[in-house]
Amino acid sequence: AILEAIARRLGTADGPLAGRRVLVTSGPTHEPIDPVRYIANRSSGKQGHAIAAALAALGAEVTLVTGPVTQPDPAGVRVVPVESARDMLDACRAALPVDVAVCAAAVADWRVASSAAQKLKKAPDGDSPTLTLAENPDILATLSAPGPDRPALMVGFAAETEHVIAHARDKRARKGCDWIVANDVGAAAGTFGGDANTVTLLTGDGEEGWPPLDKTEVAERLARRIAETLGPAP
Amino acid sequence: AILEAIARRLGTADGPLAGRRVLVTSGPTHEPIDPVRYIANRSSGKQGHAIAAALAALGAEVTLVTGPVTQPDPAGVRVVPVESARDMLDACRAALPVDVAVCAAAVADWRVASSAAQKLKKAPDGDSPTLTLAENPDILATLSAPGPDRPALMVGFAAETEHVIAHARDKRARKGCDWIVANDVGAAAGTFGGDANTVTLLTGDGEEGWPPLDKTEVAERLARRIAETLGPAP
Repeated sequence: AILEAIARRLGTADGPLAGRRVLVTSGPTHEPIDPVRYIANRSSGKQGHAIAAALAALGAEVTLVTGPVTQPDPAGVRVVPVESARDMLDACRAALPVDVAVCAAAVADWRVASSAAQKLKKAPDGDSPTLTLAENPDILATLSAPGPDRPALMVGFAAETEHVIAHARDKRARKGCDWIVANDVGAAAGTFGGDANTVTLLTGDGEEGWPPLDKTEVAERLARRIAETLGPAP
Repeated sequence: AILEAIARRLGTADGPLAGRRVLVTSGPTHEPIDPVRYIANRSSGKQGHAIAAALAALGAEVTLVTGPVTQPDPAGVRVVPVESARDMLDACRAALPVDVAVCAAAVADWRVASSAAQKLKKAPDGDSPTLTLAENPDILATLSAPGPDRPALMVGFAAETEHVIAHARDKRARKGCDWIVANDVGAAAGTFGGDANTVTLLTGDGEEGWPPLDKTEVAERLARRIAETLGPAP
């Protein structure tokens, strides 16, 4: 893997994903309420960044579109920083065409319908404001839709706090993606911000429960599965 | 300052604030919407953490109550990490009595009225949810209210995007605090996440416009002003 990473950085990549173009999304999105407030999702970006690094180590040409995180940029990966879900979709579209897209970002389902240009002030009468939300674009479903730029392999993530596998099965069908990596983000699982992750990979061929693994190991295992499925560019 | 910091860590503090107990708040608060989403304020904690460090360097015994930030803990300061505004108020009350409180945190004015125990799901009909907000406790006003535990000197911050001084004057009167440090957090000022800060100090005696300074220098200047006003413990 080290030799492959060096080869990649020298522009002479080989490895099982040599010549393959990959898009990975990572981190949360931040949806502005006003200039000082925003809605965010809990996501450290650890898992998405590790996947980008693991795919690059197998020789792929990786673009990582990431929301605001404190993770360092993975070596040998093109990093595109974004804030909101709409920014993220624009950056993903700009990265097409790709052979594989792994959507690991925790994209906000909703943004504030009309964010304020100036800081909201407390009303003298003490009335609290109500935030009307509007649905964000669905990046996984958009990229998974049939069309000339549809990646050969679309991989989504399902972070759930209950009925994890049932929700993930439903999500795979609904979004039109090929694989779903399902993980339990309930407080008991300790996934958020932690280093470990317990996932189930749902493919068209079945469901693989993986043992509890470090997020780096989850990334490497997923990258190997992608390489087995796709192979190097023809 | 280095000798004072060393002396403080050895438990033999002297300096112009020797024996004075100080409370500093810093960072944003995170208000949960559900287990994976929250409302946050943009705040790096750089200014608040620098103030805690500067007061400790003058010999004060400092408790720093901070929301989620990536700043390192300042040396020689007792750090209490919190998430929400209500947690922050509890931690501040637990730190009383103090001689000075500097409220530099960007506390969320509102929380979600009833946060969900499980992750909110998109409705099949595509209806977006509405978030009803409830007013958070006002930490600056609460600590500034007359009473046996009221600190001798209460210092607040006013982060504004427009009419900075007018809003700050109004805030000083409304909250009952002694001093307000007003700063412009409009996009043009580059304050959020940046190292520089341009502030105006509003005291009962007048308004001092400070030149653009590094946040560390703002902290040192504020700490010196506090020391001039209070002096060491009797």
